Amino acid sequence: MSASAAVNLPGHRPAPPPASATQPGARTGPDSDPSAAPKLKGSAQLNRWSRARAIRSGRKLDRPVRKSPAPERPGRQAALLDGLLSGTSGDAEGSAGSDGDDDAEMTATAGKQIYMVSDGTGWTAEHSVNAALGQFEFCLVDRGCSVNTHLFSGIDDVEKLLEIVRQAAREGAILVYTLADPEMAESARQACKLWGLPSTDVLGPITEAVATHLGVSPSGLPRGAPGRSFPLTDEYFKRIEAIEFTIKQDDGALPQNLHKADIVLAGVSRTGKTPLSIYLAQKGYKVANVPIVMGVELPKTLFEVDPEKVFGLTINPVVLQTIRKARAKSMGFTEESRSNYSEMDHVREELDFAGKIFSQNPVWPVIEVTGKAIEETAAVVLRLYHDRKQRCSMPRISKRY
Amino acid sequence: MSASAAVNLPGHRPAPPPASATQPGARTGPDSDPSAAPKLKGSAQLNRWSRARAIRSGRKLDRPVRKSPAPERPGRQAALLDGLLSGTSGDAEGSAGSDGDDDAEMTATAGKQIYMVSDGTGWTAEHSVNAALGQFEFCLVDRGCSVNTHLFSGIDDVEKLLEIVRQAAREGAILVYTLADPEMAESARQACKLWGLPSTDVLGPITEAVATHLGVSPSGLPRGAPGRSFPLTDEYFKRIEAIEFTIKQDDGALPQNLHKADIVLAGVSRTGKTPLSIYLAQKGYKVANVPIVMGVELPKTLFEVDPEKVFGLTINPVVLQTIRKARAKSMGFTEESRSNYSEMDHVREELDFAGKIFSQNPVWPVIEVTGKAIEETAAVVLRLYHDRKQRCSMPRISKRY
Repeated sequence: MSASAAVNLPGHRPAPPPASATQPGARTGPDSDPSAAPKLKGSAQLNRWSRARAIRSGRKLDRPVRKSPAPERPGRQAALLDGLLSGTSGDAEGSAGSDGDDDAEMTATAGKQIYMVSDGTGWTAEHSVNAALGQFEFCLVDRGCSVNTHLFSGIDDVEKLLEIVRQAAREGAILVYTLADPEMAESARQACKLWGLPSTDVLGPITEAVATHLGVSPSGLPRGAPGRSFPLTDEYFKRIEAIEFTIKQDDGALPQNLHKADIVLAGVSRTGKTPLSIYLAQKGYKVANVPIVMGVELPKTLFEVDPEKVFGLTINPVVLQTIRKARAKSMGFTEESRSNYSEMDHVREELDFAGKIFSQNPVWPVIEVTGKAIEETAAVVLRLYHDRKQRCSMPRISKRY
Repeated sequence: MSASAAVNLPGHRPAPPPASATQPGARTGPDSDPSAAPKLKGSAQLNRWSRARAIRSGRKLDRPVRKSPAPERPGRQAALLDGLLSGTSGDAEGSAGSDGDDDAEMTATAGKQIYMVSDGTGWTAEHSVNAALGQFEFCLVDRGCSVNTHLFSGIDDVEKLLEIVRQAAREGAILVYTLADPEMAESARQACKLWGLPSTDVLGPITEAVATHLGVSPSGLPRGAPGRSFPLTDEYFKRIEAIEFTIKQDDGALPQNLHKADIVLAGVSRTGKTPLSIYLAQKGYKVANVPIVMGVELPKTLFEVDPEKVFGLTINPVVLQTIRKARAKSMGFTEESRSNYSEMDHVREELDFAGKIFSQNPVWPVIEVTGKAIEETAAVVLRLYHDRKQRCSMPRISKRY
């Protein structure tokens, strides 16, 4: 939520200046050279890749479900692998210069390298690696260990894939891949084996499990592949609507719409209402958040809506002060202008003020956000939300596909 | 972006009504009964679970890195497993009633069941399952196959875990789990084996690969576990700031701030600028989006900022008309009020108008969003964005941890 919550009436948002207003200091592109545009499209390397794509296109659909390694490697893959090993193939030459650049980049950064390769968006690989790295926070935070991740997404032909694996091997990295195309996954597996690169296939095992469960073969098509286009489902429209609703309700705006929200969040400034609202909106929930500001009356509607959809957020005062100080600094607040926003007595008083409101509304669950990432608080909110909806033995989030 | 973009001047946002305004139709909680609150806290089952938690608490930290199955099962686990198998343990009795409820729920829904269990947020399991299901869109969309997923997050003791696995077995479901606690993961593995339940460990393999790579043992602590609290890193503050910035800039608001954005998106109404902006903001990028509306002058600043950070969005006119019709319907627009918003000639003209602007700014990449999910377009934008920043041989997104 914006710090303005601490000074404005909930429901009021500072009116934006007219569209005509411009910023004299607006930076003009240092390299506005139009020739930069073609660069993105027509390099020799990219042309070679699209040729490679052309060769393979149309062959994706009739691939079998990926099983254990195919008895013999396809001839072209073998040639590529051998070529890369001996460093004599056209691909190896083509990428020699670029490897130089990559090395330069790498030597600049310390720590272990984790390469992530995907023929889709790469978000699953990134998400999984982040989750795994969470298990090493204790040494990542104090720099006891240090990691650099490199995500390569939309890698849709074997040449590009092998160039990346080769680069990873030269940097002593590990490879994490999500490759929907079985040939690509097999190539990654073999290349890593050949070059002694530890690798993890994030998508393969779970896709195979689902395929067996459904008795249907996976398409083998990565996201964005020709032949696999995103359907405009009700789910899609629902999600967009939730995001737009949530943005409009942010920071106490339009309190008359609280009854339209699936979830209403209430808490003092810097309890993370806005990022939490947005995170939940991304999951398809219409969220409204209401700032609790000492001395400011809360919108009547907050007490008129179904109390089972209202959630209070609270936080440790010392941590809140730290966050508010950082906020005040980043907003360039002077001591005068923001006198007590991050002042400890005020912080405590405001949290007490919020606490009183929460205790007057015992149906609202009060969630302690201290030391929680947005994702964690979101998990708690949704667990409670679905438990109240479904009244099942154990809180669960069920979806139909 | 909101449909208001099609009628308002960019930079103007309808002023929210005063906080005092209330909605007569505002729904009052049907079950505002305060007694609902205790329900969430003090049920016998929850008390049993917290006792179980208490028993195990403090033992998490000194667990070894998970290796291949432990030679012998801990006695308590074995007892629980056997008890559940014979259905005679206190746990089995305790959950008998609830299983009834679950069955009722299940019989109501057709299709295959996928159970997801996590001792953390469960988002990694959910994300991976969604990615895997993407491989089966071809039969999910036309209901040729049908899937129900059930996410159980924050499952932090063996009793709860085994109750879920048992329920999954009775429904012929498969289990996908992300369990940071090695004892929990081992229990899941064994329970699935005992009950012949296909299961996939999403987090284990990648965590082990990273542990070996770093030469450090994982903490074994799930998110939100005592002893593992989320650090207030610069990354955290950067992300919050990006989200707040992006919300404030939405739909052409504050064009004088375009120079502060990392990424600027331009496109006609319903090309998905707002959800895309929010998705990118979640990843830490400050995004501003500028609606292109026929007959409305674009803010000067759009042409003054670094053109390398501006991205144009375009879409197939037929698809756009479909989306706009759905939008107009959900907004309850009458034919009169929205006359030409979703009218084909107007849609084509507006896309041509946008196309002319794009061709006058050749440095802006123009991204075709037809049939792309927000995540896919985001992947394309970030690939280009980082390629332009890093100028490396192959577009990559590198991060430091």
